[in-house]
Amino acid sequence: MLIAKVTGVVVASQKNKHLEGYRLLIVQPLDRDGKPTGDSMMAVDPAYAGYGETVLIIDEGNSARQVFNNPEIPVRTFVAGVIDRVDLE
Amino acid sequence: MLIAKVTGVVVASQKNKHLEGYRLLIVQPLDRDGKPTGDSMMAVDPAYAGYGETVLIIDEGNSARQVFNNPEIPVRTFVAGVIDRVDLE
Amino acid sequence: MLIAKVTGVVVASQKNKHLEGYRLLIVQPLDRDGKPTGDSMMAVDPAYAGYGETVLIIDEGNSARQVFNNPEIPVRTFVAGVIDRVDLE
Amino acid sequence: MLIAKVTGVVVASQKNKHLEGYRLLIVQPLDRDGKPTGDSMMAVDPAYAGYGETVLIIDEGNSARQVFNNPEIPVRTFVAGVIDRVDLE
Amino acid sequence: MLIAKVTGVVVASQKNKHLEGYRLLIVQPLDRDGKPTGDSMMAVDPAYAGYGETVLIIDEGNSARQVFNNPEIPVRTFVAGVIDRVDLE
Repeated sequence: MLIAKVTGVVVASQKNKHLEGYRLLIVQPLDRDGKPTGDSMMAVDPAYAGYGETVLIIDEGNSARQVFNNPEIPVRTFVAGVIDRVDLE
Repeated sequence: MLIAKVTGVVVASQKNKHLEGYRLLIVQPLDRDGKPTGDSMMAVDPAYAGYGETVLIIDEGNSARQVFNNPEIPVRTFVAGVIDRVDLE
Repeated sequence: MLIAKVTGVVVASQKNKHLEGYRLLIVQPLDRDGKPTGDSMMAVDPAYAGYGETVLIIDEGNSARQVFNNPEIPVRTFVAGVIDRVDLE
Repeated sequence: MLIAKVTGVVVASQKNKHLEGYRLLIVQPLDRDGKPTGDSMMAVDPAYAGYGETVLIIDEGNSARQVFNNPEIPVRTFVAGVIDRVDLE
Repeated sequence: MLIAKVTGVVVASQKNKHLEGYRLLIVQPLDRDGKPTGDSMMAVDPAYAGYGETVLIIDEGNSARQVFNNPEIPVRTFVAGVIDRVDLE
């Protein structure tokens, strides 16, 4: 589970049938201070997050299959929420 | 499985329904000498750990589903205990 | 889930029987700007992607078993689509 | 699967009930020449390995649940054997 | 899935019973040009690969359980084939 910022949208007209109709985002992982860290990744977005929003990313296939309520969906990384703020110690 | 220190709390008002009611922490992985190593991560906390406490983190979805006793919960990383001390060789 | 470019084909005459008949590609992960990032990896290709094409890679075993409709196939990484373009913020 | 050396023991009085009674070790991954590589990690030890011993570590939850013969145990990393020696080419 | 070269054999007289009788190799991951990249890892070898051979490695537990036809085997990384050559673009 990690914090990331939405930075792009992927357009793929030819993809696996179970992925049809789903929005694919490019997200940039952030550290606890909100600074970019590591490489961007792709995530399926059932939460309709907008450009620049900070989101909660989960990277586990079985979790994805629960969230999409589809045991056949080939998804490992998805947006599980929109983050309001992070309170540091 | 890794050792980490609790350094922050994530506030996310809009999230997957299975995550509602759960506390989301920011934790900083530590090396065996207790020094920070690598990037911070997010973890669900059923153990009610406090700021600055050293915790045992497990990062595996099926383990999470057992601990939360919920086969539908989309969680991969969670707090599995509070660490008292580490005895080195 | 990540974006990658097809850069090579692997020829393996002696392999696990469940992998017989499948095309094995070498793919180079790309960052959001289309630049190479990290090491190349191997992916099974049911999408018949060509050299130089930009593809959507999924790296999770259970997703692979759904896509190949074969609960016994030993595959973790595969091509799930061909990417047309990435719209950045 | 990796080779590691036992370098410490974790004392955690408050932990998930399925982990009660299990020994938690700190292990340092080694390269093929026996030199430390990467960060230390924690592993559950059903093999009763001693300080300084070289062990075989497996890092996969379903394997752990087989080895501990407990479908509910939240473990991903464990000691699967003690290594006598490595024969290099 | 990755390409690697066999560089060593692990001798472990005391190991989990499900691993008894299996050969454990040290393999060095290679990049697409055949140069070493990253750390060595251990892999179970049902393919009887020899020293110096280039092999196809799969690193996923459920795939391993299919290939070894044993739902209880604690294996995550194994040799799935021997690679003849890589054709680059």
